[in-house]
Amino acid sequence: MAHIELGVDETEFPGISGPMRFRPETAKPLNELAEVLLRGPHSLTPGERELIAAYVSGRNECEFCCASHSAFAAAQLDDGMSVVDRVRADVDTAPVSAKLRTLLHIAGAVQQDGRKVTPELVEAARAEGATDVEIHDTVLIAAAFCMYNRYVDGLGTLAPADPSQYQASARRIVEFGYQA
Amino acid sequence: MAHIELGVDETEFPGISGPMRFRPETAKPLNELAEVLLRGPHSLTPGERELIAAYVSGRNECEFCCASHSAFAAAQLDDGMSVVDRVRADVDTAPVSAKLRTLLHIAGAVQQDGRKVTPELVEAARAEGATDVEIHDTVLIAAAFCMYNRYVDGLGTLAPADPSQYQASARRIVEFGYQA
Repeated sequence: MAHIELGVDETEFPGISGPMRFRPETAKPLNELAEVLLRGPHSLTPGERELIAAYVSGRNECEFCCASHSAFAAAQLDDGMSVVDRVRADVDTAPVSAKLRTLLHIAGAVQQDGRKVTPELVEAARAEGATDVEIHDTVLIAAAFCMYNRYVDGLGTLAPADPSQYQASARRIVEFGYQA
Repeated sequence: MAHIELGVDETEFPGISGPMRFRPETAKPLNELAEVLLRGPHSLTPGERELIAAYVSGRNECEFCCASHSAFAAAQLDDGMSVVDRVRADVDTAPVSAKLRTLLHIAGAVQQDGRKVTPELVEAARAEGATDVEIHDTVLIAAAFCMYNRYVDGLGTLAPADPSQYQASARRIVEFGYQA
């Protein structure tokens, strides 16, 4: 049970959805940020961007966000959950493009501490063709999930154990987005 | 110099202001979130909320955000910078209300990991009269600054050394807010 009275049935509104119902004033910019970063017009696909979100959430051990964004990534990537699992297990051997691998390295650095992003990590991404917007958005997606993860876990919200709940959320996000 | 070409003179647009000019699509929800959390209608004053932001930014060792929000807190608190410095040095002996002290303990836990927020920390805040909204917003302010700090440092932006620059920003924020 969450640390505060969210005013919702947590089995119906698990994870971040409870606090978002509790405080719509903050939910609005939080959802808009997710929509722009993960689904707005971009040279990285929504699946690739959700993969960065899932990877960071896994490293922060946020069960709800990791299961959610893994499902959202899987629903939008050709290889589905197998590539998500392999990225989460080992970025260096996962079947992703060379460019995405370098961006995942940047995201992993941000997850620890922004100051861990070195000129060498940025140069490696550039050498694989990453643009300034792709590097910027990778840093901000990773930073934003350090927020969402702490928000969800800091309030002690419920993470459903049943994978089908995350798959149902994935269908909603793919069809309607974060601001529906 | 920042890791990417921000398209601005960084001495004129230091810290987060460069990336915000570079990517206005993400700046919009980032500024709206700061405005609601730090300046919206609330039972905690703007000075108290900026103090939470400064405290978390100090713990993340984000020079630009810590100097900025310390100045913004000082400009809106009766005791000015002396209370900010004392909170950053030792929350337990700083001259703040008993309620704010318990909220700062929650913020400090979130800064490390959302899962560090225990029922005991939440109970302690409640015992000092903290409301559900105050606890919610403390968790989200702390979580959000784990994002802003990583965003600013992950892009390698400039943190001015001159305190007068942060004081000038404080005057602008107090008068016009984050969305001006």
